Amino acid sequence: MTKKFPLSEEKLREVIKKFSTPFHLYDEATIKKNFRRLRETFSWAENFVEHFAVKALPNPHIVKILADEGAGTDCSSLAELLISERAGVTGEKIMLTSNDTPANEFQKAIELGAIINLDDITHIEFLEKVARLPKCLSFRYNPADIMNGGNDIIGRPADAKFGLTREQIFDAYKISLDKGVKRFGLHTMIASNERETETFLYTAKIMFELAVEIKNRLGIILEFVNLGGGFGIPYKPEDNPVDYKSVGEGIFELYKKILVPNGLEKIKIATESGRAMTGDAGWLVATAIHEKNIYKNYIGLDACMANLMRPALYGAYHHITVLGKENSPATKIYDVTGSLCENNDKFAIDRKLPEIEIGDILIIHDTGAHGHAMGFNYNGKLRSAELLLTESGEIKMIRRAETLDDYFATLKF
Amino acid sequence: MTKKFPLSEEKLREVIKKFSTPFHLYDEATIKKNFRRLRETFSWAENFVEHFAVKALPNPHIVKILADEGAGTDCSSLAELLISERAGVTGEKIMLTSNDTPANEFQKAIELGAIINLDDITHIEFLEKVARLPKCLSFRYNPADIMNGGNDIIGRPADAKFGLTREQIFDAYKISLDKGVKRFGLHTMIASNERETETFLYTAKIMFELAVEIKNRLGIILEFVNLGGGFGIPYKPEDNPVDYKSVGEGIFELYKKILVPNGLEKIKIATESGRAMTGDAGWLVATAIHEKNIYKNYIGLDACMANLMRPALYGAYHHITVLGKENSPATKIYDVTGSLCENNDKFAIDRKLPEIEIGDILIIHDTGAHGHAMGFNYNGKLRSAELLLTESGEIKMIRRAETLDDYFATLKF
Repeated sequence: MTKKFPLSEEKLREVIKKFSTPFHLYDEATIKKNFRRLRETFSWAENFVEHFAVKALPNPHIVKILADEGAGTDCSSLAELLISERAGVTGEKIMLTSNDTPANEFQKAIELGAIINLDDITHIEFLEKVARLPKCLSFRYNPADIMNGGNDIIGRPADAKFGLTREQIFDAYKISLDKGVKRFGLHTMIASNERETETFLYTAKIMFELAVEIKNRLGIILEFVNLGGGFGIPYKPEDNPVDYKSVGEGIFELYKKILVPNGLEKIKIATESGRAMTGDAGWLVATAIHEKNIYKNYIGLDACMANLMRPALYGAYHHITVLGKENSPATKIYDVTGSLCENNDKFAIDRKLPEIEIGDILIIHDTGAHGHAMGFNYNGKLRSAELLLTESGEIKMIRRAETLDDYFATLKF
Repeated sequence: MTKKFPLSEEKLREVIKKFSTPFHLYDEATIKKNFRRLRETFSWAENFVEHFAVKALPNPHIVKILADEGAGTDCSSLAELLISERAGVTGEKIMLTSNDTPANEFQKAIELGAIINLDDITHIEFLEKVARLPKCLSFRYNPADIMNGGNDIIGRPADAKFGLTREQIFDAYKISLDKGVKRFGLHTMIASNERETETFLYTAKIMFELAVEIKNRLGIILEFVNLGGGFGIPYKPEDNPVDYKSVGEGIFELYKKILVPNGLEKIKIATESGRAMTGDAGWLVATAIHEKNIYKNYIGLDACMANLMRPALYGAYHHITVLGKENSPATKIYDVTGSLCENNDKFAIDRKLPEIEIGDILIIHDTGAHGHAMGFNYNGKLRSAELLLTESGEIKMIRRAETLDDYFATLKF
């Protein structure tokens, strides 16, 4: 699949003149399209809700776009709850999925009327102590008892710090029921950046079966099952995208086969996608400022790991195109680097690209999720601005670049 | 070696009452001791200078402590040059060792009168174009032509983006000489967190031999050789520390054997240590806020990867002690986690520790280098305060904790 970019060369050069590189650019139309595709996938499911995983792109302007389409939020911290609130998403449109949760997160979630998804059985008591139990309580299931799989990013469930064991799940509902909670949900998050239909069907199957068992053992009819996120995107041009149609149809079959016959047809389906909403709707735009030829050939950008950590942290692939050279033959092999004094500050290693000249604009694709959000200030580097291309074709700065004053804000000397 | 902590239990509890966890605590006395040990190592070398690698702990209060002892700075960015300036370190006490360097870094370094250490041969022209050549110019040598080694953090020289090849080194001096530069230095950085004497002697040997060759081929008598940093610290109690005595004596022997007979006895020795100055002088102090027992046993802290990324990024070991239980038997096995929605947000995996109760204070050791400095705001997490225990026993806050206002500072919504 050819990698797309939403602006013409001429328009991008105008934007660069005005805002200067590096910056992340997000495309509103792509975000909406992504949301609608997911909603369409679950069109058979009444009251389907996608809780956008705010951590992927924690900018209230982006959350607002998704909220206007009907999405809720998945928050993992106090700051994310505040972003959600600023974007107008409150009440049970919010799901707090946190772990090792501090008291102030629970307190804010209760204040906002959020659904709270507990990560551990001991959190029932903790939540009650620091705030109170919410109207609708959910638990995160860690299915290590029945699966050994997992992937590079999320790891094996048995080694994962997240969620409750199978037996704890039943105990947790029982305890909450005794404490007067009447509405319940169930959650899991097994995959990350997954593109195989099988994984999503497998998740749905174990979750639906567990919902039946919860009904049979405790008499609880769950209000929702949140299948988590994990919908991957094709970072490499040759990667297949998720087959949303087969995922949707497959989960619908499981719904009809497992839930309906057991009187659970009213269970709402929920998801918490981040990457699938914004991942391919973001691009890091940077300028080549140095070329270096030693034992290998390097192109140095004015962006660095502070702007995009995934390659350094996960060895992740991000596609790169060179503005105006999209159709030029890839005749050179480069490491594309940032300026950190860390050798892993490389956006690409041994990448075939067209010949690059100083001043060329490089577009790093698929930076809309876990891109700017993961940025740090190591080596005194500053995080970039975030721009939004609106559906009307306007470019809006939705986050300014950090300044040295920001960098020094916590210091007094 | 037993891991030390500079405060009594009683005193630490007072500090926690005043500042609340999490925070990094630094010990002035240890920092000074570390600097003096390094100076002692090179006591035979006239005008030895340690350029403290600011990136390790970019706080001007810390830089000032070292500067007062006689240290200079090694800066890798504009922000670090400003920190150096704020701490009163200017002129040739500064060495700018950057890569993929933007124009404004070179301009500030020239303004400050810093020694500039170029990472690439093309930077001579770039520097001249954006500023001017400095009085004293240095080049970073990448010795991939003669070595294949390297370690986990720094990688193999042949794959490293840093420095000039051997042949480029000679060309670079020649070009600079022709452009009127009269004073020169030579630099390399081969190791990181290294504790073997051999590595340091090997570095000195190849650098001294290169200095001789530079004299023989170009008639240049280098003003200094900067051997880089890389002095490791014993993160694990069973690790041996660097044998500074044998490093110092060994390098002195090489100096007498290689430099002196070649008329290079005036070459100054320089280093750029970060970790060796502050690494073991810092501790992350956190509170156990949750205990979780699923497929493994977890202790959740009020600190997370935002406060210390080395375990997640490098799988690095950081020793942990439990306040008041330093001598209790390690009867339990825990994963010690932070609250990020990332399974790699663990300070320790399968660590034997005394039984921990909620509210216990955990001391994470050796966080004085690349600890707070690498922090990010992923998942909306905030970076902690930094405290300094002064030699007079006073506790000073040398950086305040981030607030939600800081987190939202670059947003307008």
